[in-house]
Amino acid sequence: MKKQLWAWMMACIMLPALLHAQAGKVSDNLTLPSKILKGDRKYAIYLPPDYESSSRSYPVLYLLHGAGDDQTGWVQFGEVLHIADKAIREGNATPMIIVMPDANTGRRGYANDIKGEWQYEDFFFKELIPFIEKTYRAKKEKRYRAVAGLSMGGEGTFTYALHHPELFAAACPLSAATGPLALEDATRWLKRRGQDSTVSDAQIKAWYERQSVLHMVNNMPEDQKKAVRWYIDCGDDDFLFEGNSLVHIAMRKKEIPHEFRIRDGGHSWGYWRTALPEVLAFVSASFHQF
Amino acid sequence: MKKQLWAWMMACIMLPALLHAQAGKVSDNLTLPSKILKGDRKYAIYLPPDYESSSRSYPVLYLLHGAGDDQTGWVQFGEVLHIADKAIREGNATPMIIVMPDANTGRRGYANDIKGEWQYEDFFFKELIPFIEKTYRAKKEKRYRAVAGLSMGGEGTFTYALHHPELFAAACPLSAATGPLALEDATRWLKRRGQDSTVSDAQIKAWYERQSVLHMVNNMPEDQKKAVRWYIDCGDDDFLFEGNSLVHIAMRKKEIPHEFRIRDGGHSWGYWRTALPEVLAFVSASFHQF
Amino acid sequence: MKKQLWAWMMACIMLPALLHAQAGKVSDNLTLPSKILKGDRKYAIYLPPDYESSSRSYPVLYLLHGAGDDQTGWVQFGEVLHIADKAIREGNATPMIIVMPDANTGRRGYANDIKGEWQYEDFFFKELIPFIEKTYRAKKEKRYRAVAGLSMGGEGTFTYALHHPELFAAACPLSAATGPLALEDATRWLKRRGQDSTVSDAQIKAWYERQSVLHMVNNMPEDQKKAVRWYIDCGDDDFLFEGNSLVHIAMRKKEIPHEFRIRDGGHSWGYWRTALPEVLAFVSASFHQF
Amino acid sequence: MKKQLWAWMMACIMLPALLHAQAGKVSDNLTLPSKILKGDRKYAIYLPPDYESSSRSYPVLYLLHGAGDDQTGWVQFGEVLHIADKAIREGNATPMIIVMPDANTGRRGYANDIKGEWQYEDFFFKELIPFIEKTYRAKKEKRYRAVAGLSMGGEGTFTYALHHPELFAAACPLSAATGPLALEDATRWLKRRGQDSTVSDAQIKAWYERQSVLHMVNNMPEDQKKAVRWYIDCGDDDFLFEGNSLVHIAMRKKEIPHEFRIRDGGHSWGYWRTALPEVLAFVSASFHQF
Repeated sequence: MKKQLWAWMMACIMLPALLHAQAGKVSDNLTLPSKILKGDRKYAIYLPPDYESSSRSYPVLYLLHGAGDDQTGWVQFGEVLHIADKAIREGNATPMIIVMPDANTGRRGYANDIKGEWQYEDFFFKELIPFIEKTYRAKKEKRYRAVAGLSMGGEGTFTYALHHPELFAAACPLSAATGPLALEDATRWLKRRGQDSTVSDAQIKAWYERQSVLHMVNNMPEDQKKAVRWYIDCGDDDFLFEGNSLVHIAMRKKEIPHEFRIRDGGHSWGYWRTALPEVLAFVSASFHQF
Repeated sequence: MKKQLWAWMMACIMLPALLHAQAGKVSDNLTLPSKILKGDRKYAIYLPPDYESSSRSYPVLYLLHGAGDDQTGWVQFGEVLHIADKAIREGNATPMIIVMPDANTGRRGYANDIKGEWQYEDFFFKELIPFIEKTYRAKKEKRYRAVAGLSMGGEGTFTYALHHPELFAAACPLSAATGPLALEDATRWLKRRGQDSTVSDAQIKAWYERQSVLHMVNNMPEDQKKAVRWYIDCGDDDFLFEGNSLVHIAMRKKEIPHEFRIRDGGHSWGYWRTALPEVLAFVSASFHQF
Repeated sequence: MKKQLWAWMMACIMLPALLHAQAGKVSDNLTLPSKILKGDRKYAIYLPPDYESSSRSYPVLYLLHGAGDDQTGWVQFGEVLHIADKAIREGNATPMIIVMPDANTGRRGYANDIKGEWQYEDFFFKELIPFIEKTYRAKKEKRYRAVAGLSMGGEGTFTYALHHPELFAAACPLSAATGPLALEDATRWLKRRGQDSTVSDAQIKAWYERQSVLHMVNNMPEDQKKAVRWYIDCGDDDFLFEGNSLVHIAMRKKEIPHEFRIRDGGHSWGYWRTALPEVLAFVSASFHQF
Repeated sequence: MKKQLWAWMMACIMLPALLHAQAGKVSDNLTLPSKILKGDRKYAIYLPPDYESSSRSYPVLYLLHGAGDDQTGWVQFGEVLHIADKAIREGNATPMIIVMPDANTGRRGYANDIKGEWQYEDFFFKELIPFIEKTYRAKKEKRYRAVAGLSMGGEGTFTYALHHPELFAAACPLSAATGPLALEDATRWLKRRGQDSTVSDAQIKAWYERQSVLHMVNNMPEDQKKAVRWYIDCGDDDFLFEGNSLVHIAMRKKEIPHEFRIRDGGHSWGYWRTALPEVLAFVSASFHQF
């Protein structure tokens, strides 16, 4: 009888701690200093439910927003808190840190500028990742790092993981822009954007080779084919249907393992909110070393 | 050994209940100072479950009570805490701040008085909204702000969103008073209320044009027709059936997009409590940018 | 005693599975002879699950199709078999006979023609109902007879129950056409349809007074107001929004008891299939004498 | 004890009758005579649960097997009885007749032979469809007829609906072969198959234009673009990935409405059994006239 009472008291004492322990925590307006981009950069972060009560380290997912949004996109429209908490609680995802950087302020996009004036990709690898891994209890090995993103952020996902397969265990481009399909497209795009005549053909070619997902897939070295686990998803009504379908075909022909999904829907947050649980489960499978 | 087992079983039994227990927070007797209304004004507020543990900003729903209630109405009769927590937990609503101001103390109503003596609407826009956005982690853009209310508060919802379509992403009048259907009604009402002879016909006309929902709908500029997402709901047994049905007809004829529902019921809290989950889902869809 | 108990338990365990297996019966291509319409007329019929195994009599629902369909509409598009079986099995509807006559072959519509050449309404009351009540085990009293229908069939529902409140316990117009809103409309319609000059103003007025639901509601004798139980339903995106909303307003002002619903949707079978379970429950409540 | 026995006997006696009423019926070894193919042809058929007890007519789905199977494939491997019964019982599909013809005996395939020796497509349209519509209570209009199939039967689905858009409301190719992607492929294939030199280039070209899904999609007349509702599904691990993805791209560019899915999986019955409920729901939506 006394033991029972004791158990009840324990439960009452533990209740607040337990309540605390079940919810992750989101901040959407943090900053880090950047020398490369000459100023402070914003980011949002999700910390898993047990982050504060434990002292372990966690895998990290970099989750990239699309054009027109900023670091708050996945928080407000993507419901990352609710969805990640649920996925972790139900055992479909492992607790992880989710980092959502702003690629909208100042200039927009995840790539290095062709003329070297806005080196966002350099910022990402040389400043953001080190900052995160220093500031939070983040695991630092490739096998605990993943990247995902939507639309323009899907393009970032493709290019980051293709440029640095040694850094990511998994990559999940959603409704992704896939860069120029051919060199001519790159040339035409850059001219349309009013690049002046100081951009040489060689520069355009170099840029094309770093930004065309199709080009990089078709020229992937044999030993990189299994370096990254891919999960690619694009709605059947999405305007980016062509690039994603061609990348699927190219990956199949090159025998690059990848998951590919075409579900019912278009280029909308309704699509991405239903994709996120799958992304979390997929990167967790990588982190779990199935 | 057996006792330990029992404690484990207890924990396993309680765990789902605990997980279930994430709760928002309601206060129903706060105040803000008002120069316009010459004194402190009361308000109630709902903060979502993750408000305290996180540091993100949130969309805001202004939720207006009816005649005879005050800022505590939606808390006590409307069960806003239970219903909002449940909607958020089940993924049907996004976490939001819900503000419930008192429009009952001193004088009653959400409108500016015809003679300029009681400018509640001015208070709402010039003092309440800025106060909320300064005091709480509230998002400040139109696309993250909504208004809803019942009966007299439905009238407030209609008029506020019609006067300021630039400020609200969504508006949900429930069982709403819709103001005078015709100018004659306005004149008759004002006389019945004992307005003295110093109120001119021009003043009555100006008041009518700001308070008649039908008048404003019928004279809505083309470029405002899609400015606000509308969700209008009024029971088939409600005494306010006529105004709401006529507004539906007028909006359809003017091709103003809107959701309209007539469900089974009258002018009662039972009706509004079953409306609230729909309202939260509808404004969340706006905040989610579907 | 124990054995009896055991048998009961067995029955209770098996009952849900057994109940699941009970199926009604539909025929969609039967005929009856008509002198009034000078030839055979088609009809479809639903007989409830226990019709063949029992020898009791049943209430009857006349269920009218819309313009463009025929007697097969509620069978193929409306899923009357599946929906009625389910409603009966789950106890939401009482077993009833559902009769679906063809008002599409030869000429279209449920009304008597203005010139007396095509008297469908006469056929309905003088030939169809007597035929059904003679051919099937149908109850013959008003309190066991109901009518429902969609669009043009909703108009038929309104007019039949307004012309013959002594014959129907309940009437359920869905997405109903409501006839001319004013006499001028009637005149204009009839001229547009190329009625020759032999149709007199008196004939038009008489036709208007029999076909305008608003007119009949506004002129309903006091002692008919509670003669029929009404369930009226029309989607907020339906093009027939005006007539239905005006009928609701008129019935409220005349204090004619009625249920009225505006749900989310337009003029489509998706709307009517979700209305049908409510219709079956509503007419069953009438047949049940709650 | 005797009472118990009696209860059991009752249950055993009633069970078959009750079960009978809820279950569809499959036959997998029926035949029809064919003059075109010079002999009897086999087919399997699914009749919905209410077929025998009712006397209504039903929509028809032609469901085609793949290479290596015959008319029994969808029955044995595809579980058509269980899946269709469940879909109908749960209201996800409308009761329909499902016809599964044998395209394996004698020679294999759904197309007319290039040399006119084996005209299976002619048999399908001139003999099979008329036979089915004469033998069973089948609706005969385009809007009640659909075609679906897997692999080689997906190719049959594509070509039949592209050749005869006037005959099918919906078409659902699963993991479909899509014929030659280019004229050169057609030439190479036919030579590989040992066609002798009597086949002219003109014959090859004509055959290509009737068998290449891409060619037909790219040359579809404007007025056929919305004639058929398409549901196309092919796993991300399927070896037929290229043709299906290219057809999706071509249909998007030609603005031909279609649903397209790429789910997780390969060329296997596990994939097709999970596709079948979607196919039944999709063709039912067509039959239902949403």
